[in-house]
Amino acid sequence: MDCPLCVAEHETTIWRDGSCRVIRVDDPDYPGFCRVVWHEHVAEMTDLTAVSQRHILNVVLATETALRQLMRPDKINLASFGNVVPHVHWHVIPRFVDDRHFPQSTWGEPQRDGARRTAPSSEALAAAIGAALTELTSG
Amino acid sequence: MDCPLCVAEHETTIWRDGSCRVIRVDDPDYPGFCRVVWHEHVAEMTDLTAVSQRHILNVVLATETALRQLMRPDKINLASFGNVVPHVHWHVIPRFVDDRHFPQSTWGEPQRDGARRTAPSSEALAAAIGAALTELTSG
Repeated sequence: MDCPLCVAEHETTIWRDGSCRVIRVDDPDYPGFCRVVWHEHVAEMTDLTAVSQRHILNVVLATETALRQLMRPDKINLASFGNVVPHVHWHVIPRFVDDRHFPQSTWGEPQRDGARRTAPSSEALAAAIGAALTELTSG
Repeated sequence: MDCPLCVAEHETTIWRDGSCRVIRVDDPDYPGFCRVVWHEHVAEMTDLTAVSQRHILNVVLATETALRQLMRPDKINLASFGNVVPHVHWHVIPRFVDDRHFPQSTWGEPQRDGARRTAPSSEALAAAIGAALTELTSG
């Protein structure tokens, strides 16, 4: 089976450990948009063990914390669909009231030409994700 | 401030505890669609304590387990946006290949007149959510 998330090619990896990785989503309308991908090919969150569920969700929340610290968005959007690629992955999207779809989801009808912003560097994101994850898991 | 999720009116509650509730979303295209709502008015997941984050995510995952057991969907979709109503809530949506938007998200372009299905009863859902939550938190 050809699963694009099983082969980590053409990805910009921001952070990774033995279980999952945070990659950058190249969408000019959504600077800072990150995707958290479980390495193993598993379709649903409830196919993972409780320990693995907690780990990937901690990485998702650490990514949210990092994006809030570095970009101060008006809202964070979190989503895990997998209808096209049934391999557990989470979208973590910083949203701004003047972005292309606000207040619709990024999968909805565009509302305007979105304001452009500069994404944080991968180095800054990696450091902030690592620090947030340490704080979450040591608490 | 008038937040529709702070006032639990016109809701069909399936399950609740002191922190959050699972309510039924009345969408004829998406039988079984549930929403998990944190009682307190908090905008972002990372505004919650680590214990509260874990609790609401366990309820989300228990709802996923219940819907998989009772409906055998082709995919589960999970999302937390809050762009319109910035009060932490999660959408838990059983998806089928012949539903109105598959493989698009339910916020995307409709693909067809979706096949109609019968949703599980609130009693069956409540029992399955409670059992899944007990298993998750006793593990």
